[in-house]
Amino acid sequence: MIFLQIRWDYNTMLKKGRRREDVFNDLQKFKKMDMSYSSGRILGSMCTDPDSVGLEAYKMFIDTNLGDSGHFKGTATMEAEVISSLGRLLHLDKAYGHIVTGGTEANLMAMTVAKYLFEEQHDTMPELILPKSAHFSFKKICSMLSVKPVYVDLDCDYRMDVSQLEGLITENTMAIVAIAGSTELGLVDKIDEISEIAFSNDIYLHVDAALGGFIIPFLNNENNNKYNIDFGCKGVTSMTIDPHKMGLAPVPSGGIIFRHRHHLEKLSVKTPYLTKDKQTTIVGTRTGASTAATWTLLNYYGIEGYQKIVNDVLKLTKYTYNKLQKNQQIKLVCKPELNIISFTIDDMDVDIIKNKLTKMGWSLSIAEYPHAIRLVIMPHVKKEHIDLFINDLNQSLQEY
Amino acid sequence: MIFLQIRWDYNTMLKKGRRREDVFNDLQKFKKMDMSYSSGRILGSMCTDPDSVGLEAYKMFIDTNLGDSGHFKGTATMEAEVISSLGRLLHLDKAYGHIVTGGTEANLMAMTVAKYLFEEQHDTMPELILPKSAHFSFKKICSMLSVKPVYVDLDCDYRMDVSQLEGLITENTMAIVAIAGSTELGLVDKIDEISEIAFSNDIYLHVDAALGGFIIPFLNNENNNKYNIDFGCKGVTSMTIDPHKMGLAPVPSGGIIFRHRHHLEKLSVKTPYLTKDKQTTIVGTRTGASTAATWTLLNYYGIEGYQKIVNDVLKLTKYTYNKLQKNQQIKLVCKPELNIISFTIDDMDVDIIKNKLTKMGWSLSIAEYPHAIRLVIMPHVKKEHIDLFINDLNQSLQEY
Repeated sequence: MIFLQIRWDYNTMLKKGRRREDVFNDLQKFKKMDMSYSSGRILGSMCTDPDSVGLEAYKMFIDTNLGDSGHFKGTATMEAEVISSLGRLLHLDKAYGHIVTGGTEANLMAMTVAKYLFEEQHDTMPELILPKSAHFSFKKICSMLSVKPVYVDLDCDYRMDVSQLEGLITENTMAIVAIAGSTELGLVDKIDEISEIAFSNDIYLHVDAALGGFIIPFLNNENNNKYNIDFGCKGVTSMTIDPHKMGLAPVPSGGIIFRHRHHLEKLSVKTPYLTKDKQTTIVGTRTGASTAATWTLLNYYGIEGYQKIVNDVLKLTKYTYNKLQKNQQIKLVCKPELNIISFTIDDMDVDIIKNKLTKMGWSLSIAEYPHAIRLVIMPHVKKEHIDLFINDLNQSLQEY
Repeated sequence: MIFLQIRWDYNTMLKKGRRREDVFNDLQKFKKMDMSYSSGRILGSMCTDPDSVGLEAYKMFIDTNLGDSGHFKGTATMEAEVISSLGRLLHLDKAYGHIVTGGTEANLMAMTVAKYLFEEQHDTMPELILPKSAHFSFKKICSMLSVKPVYVDLDCDYRMDVSQLEGLITENTMAIVAIAGSTELGLVDKIDEISEIAFSNDIYLHVDAALGGFIIPFLNNENNNKYNIDFGCKGVTSMTIDPHKMGLAPVPSGGIIFRHRHHLEKLSVKTPYLTKDKQTTIVGTRTGASTAATWTLLNYYGIEGYQKIVNDVLKLTKYTYNKLQKNQQIKLVCKPELNIISFTIDDMDVDIIKNKLTKMGWSLSIAEYPHAIRLVIMPHVKKEHIDLFINDLNQSLQEY
């Protein structure tokens, strides 16, 4: 398709500007090539359609830069309020952190702090203990920071096998990572047990709640008691929580929260020529629009608003799970805890089935361990999409 | 001011959502606390008002995520075209790279690649040779990556003293960084000479053209010949170029360009559950809106459009420089090469003068070496703002 080729020649086409209408005609063509969340066809993404109220706020502050926050005191105030309320949401009275680009940057900030703390006491290579279910960003981060990853096996429920944890701790252990909502299965590690071990061994514990952070605090109470994933556990040192997932904020909107000010301050770099004399983020220039959108959504929805969003999503997840169960060929990997459902198919190659469904217009994803089709139910997915999808799925199984 | 306090109590205010009008009334108050570029009062920022045409494109693609580009093939095509044309702009026929959050992330990507290449041959601590004028992000990056910074002094013109360079190269030299448009003075290192040394010693050379990348290629020809900053120099391995500075794209829009595909591929991480099987960025989730805005601006303005933008800015810089020269008390640090002017004041403390002017409503910045007031002339600054500013400056000098 001509559109997928690079059409530019620096010496000709780029020389003169093009007419605005022509440029926007091309943009429309590019737009048509993109999928939209609202089509309900994207069943494998933890992102979703940004909420319109948050989007309006985002656009209002689109020219702000929190990398030079002295110019943008209003936006900086919003960031302080967002961090404070995310902290309270995670049972931390006084929180320190930033709105960043997403889970990877948040995890990178936490691991950088843990590395600096480790280096104050050791000159050996730091080790990071993390479950095999940890997000691939930690692999990236370990090679960047020259940290040795030490993987904990998963138990029969695909959670970190906590019984192994203490045995893996050495004098070179820099930190432990636990997951509140694993990327592939949406499962929650036993944070409270892991916290006890981290605390009694005086080890930095980071909880990656990029997905679960905007879900678990909003579960209805009887479920909520089940989970104890946050700063309420005394061993938890920092947490990742992504407003641009179930928080409905536009990308890029991630969150990093530290329990201690002096931990965030470890990232501090002098910024001679800026309006503030130091910076405690990794990325420099940061749009304040993400902060404005998140501030607005937290204010506009409040806890009760998010409880409704989350419970609707979990209801549809349950509905989907039950419908899948009706097909004897489909083997569900686990009972979903959050909004992710994974399944294999008797005597069939899930990749072949996935490709068939892709041809039918569905965007699915594949979990690696176990190798399974993975559905993520986000607010852009509605009951009618699920019904359509399951019809197509059953049909493609018959044709197999 | 009540507005500067954190007003939230998780147990009360956040419980229930607030009325949309109340939320947007607050947003208006926050907006009033922010400065605006269009006021012409921000004289110390390398960012500026995003161009309205680029902004329209940005909003059109605000829901896209290039971190999962299989869903957004149109946006991914735009990114390929943007990288290709930025490459051509920098005299590279086939370019490899990404649109990222800005200079810091771009520099971090380049340094991570250089570190991985170094580690294939060495197990010692890598050293990075960079001028004292390098952006503070490199300090951040060196501590994160455990790389030892080796600083080159500046010559009498505040550029990297190339005569020192060869003497600082050791078997542990991982890379050399050169600057095309220093943050504090807007000066351009002798890239061609540095390139010769890097090439003959087979050392990775990264050029940080975050500022100069969208200025130098658009200078009128007789100037242009003066500069040879890019992949036209055979030793240059990678470059940082920021569309969100003189490119007029909204933040966050940075660019990283590699000469070799296998260098970008060093960053590649397997992404099992996504629509593409690998990712070659550091940040995961990435808005495609920045790419759409940059693609649109490159198409809409073309080289000639950017030549006009750049030459207008440089004319106003010259005008400002000449007006400042008329005041005998003002000592200009150097003749501006790009759009930055720095000056000290006879027998006066520049911080005191800066604070006086801040009280008069001007946002200035201070350069560290030499300690001077630093003006950055961006497209949001007009002749009338400069005239006003210089009146206020002269007045505050008389009152000193």
